[in-house]
Amino acid sequence: MSDRHTFSKLVGLVVALTAASSLFAAEDIKGFLADEVDQQRAWEEKLRALPQPANLREYMRTITEEPHIAGLPGSKKVADYILAQFQSWGLNAWIEETQALMPLPTERHVELVEPESYVALSNDKDSADAEQLPTYNAYAAEGDVTAQLVYVNYGTPEDYEQLAEWGIDVEGKIVIARYGRSWRGIKAKLAQTHGAVGCLIYSDPRDDGFYQGLTYPEGPYRPEHGVQRGSIMDMPIHPGDPLSPGFGAMTDQPRLDIAQAQTLVKIPVLPISYGDALPLLKHLRGRVAPEDWRGALPMTYHIGPGPSKVRLKLALEWKTRPLYNVIARIDGAVYPDQWIIHGNHHDAWNNGANDPTSGNVALMETARSFAELVKQGWKPKRTIVFASWDGEEWGLLGSTEWAETHKDELMEKGVIYINSDSTGKGWLNMSGSHTLQEFVNDVARDIDDPERGMSVWDAARARRLDSADDDDARAEIEQSDDLRIGALGSGSDYTVFLDHLTMASLNLGFGGDSNGGVYHSNYDSFTWYQKHSDGEFLFGRAMSQTVGTTILRLADATVLPFNFVDLADTMSRYVNEIEQAHAARDSAPDVDLGAVTEALEKLREAGEAYESSLGRLSTMSSSAVHGQPQLARLNQLLYTSERRLAHDEGLPNREWYRHQVYAPGFYTGYGVKTIPGIREGLEEQEWEEARYYVNVVSEALEGLIAQVQEARSLVEQLSN
Amino acid sequence: MSDRHTFSKLVGLVVALTAASSLFAAEDIKGFLADEVDQQRAWEEKLRALPQPANLREYMRTITEEPHIAGLPGSKKVADYILAQFQSWGLNAWIEETQALMPLPTERHVELVEPESYVALSNDKDSADAEQLPTYNAYAAEGDVTAQLVYVNYGTPEDYEQLAEWGIDVEGKIVIARYGRSWRGIKAKLAQTHGAVGCLIYSDPRDDGFYQGLTYPEGPYRPEHGVQRGSIMDMPIHPGDPLSPGFGAMTDQPRLDIAQAQTLVKIPVLPISYGDALPLLKHLRGRVAPEDWRGALPMTYHIGPGPSKVRLKLALEWKTRPLYNVIARIDGAVYPDQWIIHGNHHDAWNNGANDPTSGNVALMETARSFAELVKQGWKPKRTIVFASWDGEEWGLLGSTEWAETHKDELMEKGVIYINSDSTGKGWLNMSGSHTLQEFVNDVARDIDDPERGMSVWDAARARRLDSADDDDARAEIEQSDDLRIGALGSGSDYTVFLDHLTMASLNLGFGGDSNGGVYHSNYDSFTWYQKHSDGEFLFGRAMSQTVGTTILRLADATVLPFNFVDLADTMSRYVNEIEQAHAARDSAPDVDLGAVTEALEKLREAGEAYESSLGRLSTMSSSAVHGQPQLARLNQLLYTSERRLAHDEGLPNREWYRHQVYAPGFYTGYGVKTIPGIREGLEEQEWEEARYYVNVVSEALEGLIAQVQEARSLVEQLSN
Repeated sequence: MSDRHTFSKLVGLVVALTAASSLFAAEDIKGFLADEVDQQRAWEEKLRALPQPANLREYMRTITEEPHIAGLPGSKKVADYILAQFQSWGLNAWIEETQALMPLPTERHVELVEPESYVALSNDKDSADAEQLPTYNAYAAEGDVTAQLVYVNYGTPEDYEQLAEWGIDVEGKIVIARYGRSWRGIKAKLAQTHGAVGCLIYSDPRDDGFYQGLTYPEGPYRPEHGVQRGSIMDMPIHPGDPLSPGFGAMTDQPRLDIAQAQTLVKIPVLPISYGDALPLLKHLRGRVAPEDWRGALPMTYHIGPGPSKVRLKLALEWKTRPLYNVIARIDGAVYPDQWIIHGNHHDAWNNGANDPTSGNVALMETARSFAELVKQGWKPKRTIVFASWDGEEWGLLGSTEWAETHKDELMEKGVIYINSDSTGKGWLNMSGSHTLQEFVNDVARDIDDPERGMSVWDAARARRLDSADDDDARAEIEQSDDLRIGALGSGSDYTVFLDHLTMASLNLGFGGDSNGGVYHSNYDSFTWYQKHSDGEFLFGRAMSQTVGTTILRLADATVLPFNFVDLADTMSRYVNEIEQAHAARDSAPDVDLGAVTEALEKLREAGEAYESSLGRLSTMSSSAVHGQPQLARLNQLLYTSERRLAHDEGLPNREWYRHQVYAPGFYTGYGVKTIPGIREGLEEQEWEEARYYVNVVSEALEGLIAQVQEARSLVEQLSN
Repeated sequence: MSDRHTFSKLVGLVVALTAASSLFAAEDIKGFLADEVDQQRAWEEKLRALPQPANLREYMRTITEEPHIAGLPGSKKVADYILAQFQSWGLNAWIEETQALMPLPTERHVELVEPESYVALSNDKDSADAEQLPTYNAYAAEGDVTAQLVYVNYGTPEDYEQLAEWGIDVEGKIVIARYGRSWRGIKAKLAQTHGAVGCLIYSDPRDDGFYQGLTYPEGPYRPEHGVQRGSIMDMPIHPGDPLSPGFGAMTDQPRLDIAQAQTLVKIPVLPISYGDALPLLKHLRGRVAPEDWRGALPMTYHIGPGPSKVRLKLALEWKTRPLYNVIARIDGAVYPDQWIIHGNHHDAWNNGANDPTSGNVALMETARSFAELVKQGWKPKRTIVFASWDGEEWGLLGSTEWAETHKDELMEKGVIYINSDSTGKGWLNMSGSHTLQEFVNDVARDIDDPERGMSVWDAARARRLDSADDDDARAEIEQSDDLRIGALGSGSDYTVFLDHLTMASLNLGFGGDSNGGVYHSNYDSFTWYQKHSDGEFLFGRAMSQTVGTTILRLADATVLPFNFVDLADTMSRYVNEIEQAHAARDSAPDVDLGAVTEALEKLREAGEAYESSLGRLSTMSSSAVHGQPQLARLNQLLYTSERRLAHDEGLPNREWYRHQVYAPGFYTGYGVKTIPGIREGLEEQEWEEARYYVNVVSEALEGLIAQVQEARSLVEQLSN
């Protein structure tokens, strides 16, 4: 790509040598004109000085005092606290209430009935804590089934293929899967698809328990009775309230009956601890599990079916419950109808210190910092919206219902959605729309790592080099100007913005140096976080600085910092992957992706031309550019560019998912499937469907190319 | 190599088509003249009809009734039983008594003293069985030490290198290593070398316990209290009585004082069960063990040192005890001074159904079959010796002292030593001198697999193809006429014959389909063997048929069936391995193996010329060949060919090991190091030593080449 950074280094060297930086242009910032950079940098530095670890600690201390599960009073209490904080800082803030179908368990029973008796969920002094939500998987069906048990490993499609090869059928059986490798909702869905009458999901100590490290309280990993709660809503169909797909639950449109809902599981499912799984699993016989099916329980892993026979009973109270999204807004002075939205959920399955409070307190501190910056005289060009979502854990309820309620306005005004969720000690993770790859890399270069005496970008790069699989992977990192950002699947609140509204989105967080096994269990406590993650809240501050700088640059950019070459590059890699995987399939018919490849080549050319024009524009004086009629139109073209990647019919069997580049996999859950219409069509051997989506994607790209070409022509006009 | 087998197949086809086999020559047998083959095949078929599963069962039932540990009365009782059986079949048999230093424990104490108290070896209802030998490692030192514990994984040289990289020193500590990957004696030796004051060795359930399969009694794997006993004598220095290295313990030569013994460990060492290891290991802290250091115990594996602090006390009664080798002999009618020796030990650490009784009862049944064959009128050309050894478990005591006692006679008369030890259900394993590779492959082609409707050779080949790592390995198997036989290190009674006397040797056994974890524990019982190994004794019969056919062919061959091309080929592979490993070492000086490579090329040529002459000889009529003076000389040259591979100074620091092609590794124990003088010199960066052994090996090969050339010339004379 460009030699921008080499040039920057040279500039930096010259600056250092002359010790007279004011004589030279400061390092450029994409989207700002040369004469705007100093002022922008000054505001950024002021902003980054504001977040304080002590504040982060105090918010977390308060929020994690009690469990705060969406739909229950604890969550309302947290929402009120956040609102009060926002308002105390002078922000224009309010709560937007919405609702969703949210079943809670009234009876849970898991019992080994043969070859001996063992009643689970009862002798579990930790997870059975009366003040906590009973452990369960939201959106499972009620039921009372007794059947032989089959161990299905992680319960992935590959695991069921292996079972079929062995001639083991789960029809009429209860399956037990271990957490990991796939999202839990997929484990439930596949159990149901294969005819199982019930499903247990347990946390094997190999994956996040004693095999990995010491367990809570001495260490960070999952103890014997730790249970991972979590939703098994079929979110790859759509997230949000199961009864109001695609529209706000509190709008006028009538909600569905429960029987019409598409995203509810049809069999009873419960999560259990490994303490409870051991007595059930150890009586399985039949085939001995192969090595990669074995966990760390002290027994011989067998597949079954039986002789272990299990009774699984689940009764639920099916109620629609209220949700409280806390919203704050700083109106833009120049483009009030261009919204930069930053969100993080506040609801938890428990006290939720890590998930989600670590991210939510960073969002709060970022909001406070912007409120403070406003007091210092700063005014954003664009509107900034902070959102602390409710009901994320159940199925992205709060964010989805909010975005569906404000759909028309967001389609018009939504510039970028920046998400965060749990964050901790470690290295910056960056994912999102690849048009923002260059931009977010540049932000990361300007944030100090709290431990390593370098930028968080340098630290992330060093980490990637350390953990690269081989020399090729290392060389690829070394030769790239930017770190590749990940593609987004699902699993947090960006989903509705990116996948349904097709707003360009980012997801940011720190992690990798604070592993453990307390996810969605009672052990995700303030104590755990202090002891085993970012206890000094230095990475929390870096998180606030990172997101704050991201918002500040987007809010004030003269030209929004999109880069279409990066998108074309990344999509070409995806097309290559898809073609190679398809070529490796036995006796698959030819499916020609040529139209997509050609469109991507044109997109790259258009993107390069645009970048080159933008380079010229950035040297213009701001007085010559601002107020020109082309500028507003240019930015509008840029931030709606991601909309061109939508297809109104959505993806096969899930029209809610409109984005044609990013989607959670139909059978992978949280895991992303890029260019999903084509990729999943080929994977599922739906050749006509794949061919259809070759057209959809290439046509979408043609629309985008035209928009980029128009943007370039506007830039050219502004440069003359 | 030759197209012998293709030819044989064609002959077989023609025979089948005409259904008139007598019109055609039967398939040839290496070493027999064309007109001798029919008679030989007839005797072989008679022999193979004799072994009976019911007999094998009866011998095993009797021998495994009680523990029969060498040096204790149980072993004498078994020796007397074997002798009585031999004599009852009409064999000329006797017991040869010898002796060795054999310490037995008088006190064993393993206790966790910090951070809490736990006394091992006490609550172990199985291994503490009063009728059994207390669990211990023979030839450990007495001592009473208390120190912090360090977990050293398998205690291999690589593991100590890893510890050093982590900055963890075991000096002054007690180490705990798990069984596996290396021979236990090496674990003790390396612990001592690195300054540890004591060593515990335990059986991790990952390696032969519940991780692998169900445990005894339900399954074959090692239960919670199963302890692997075993010797830790420093056998890579020399096996046999520590006080009579290189000479018979009961000969006139004075034995050493204990202080002079080279093969005794200098620190206390004890084996423990994983039931006893868990309380010790689970209190270790410090570095978390990386994945390949983790076993299957339900805990987080840490390296330490400490805080676990352990007291290890061991007191011993140092006594010289008697050993009873049972010998039977059938004298040869033509060459009484050419001995074919077959041995298997009878002593066990326990009741020893698998180790060694499974192999010993096959030897007994083979001896009975030969006794029967003699009654049917058969007379061997050469002398056959059957030996049921005592004291193998302690350090190959019986076989070593016997062979050292009869050294001069064996150097003169020993043709081939055929060893067996534990055998079970599965596939034929063949190891030994590569001059016998073709011969033993041919034998295997004539033995019926008891389960698979094919020869044991075909079954072994299919098994190798199944378990080949990759396509290259598969192609190599498919393209070879013969299955490669393994090289012998140490670990059973062939050691003195092959490595010290340099008699050509073979080691045969069935296995691979009867895995488990009862090795050297109380669970190696008749019940275990019946349930989890060759309970119908069909593979035991095949074993007796295999060894019987081997003996019969060797005893009666007109020309002993050595092949020097196979040796040259195999050694060339070893040289390649060594050169590649050396080239991969950083900044290692050039060590030129050219002299060895050249000698091997000459050996191959001499071997090919010999094979070609032998082909012509085999078509001669027996009347023209027998009685010719060259024949006796030819056979003598052939069976002493392996002697040319000896070097009287032996290997560095261990002159007892005289063979220059095969030896147990100085740091691998049982594991073989081929061409050890050169290979270990390079591995240990002793460049001058390696260069010295390049000369030794190439000179030895020159001697062998001359002998092969002389043999060829004799064959030529016999063919004219």
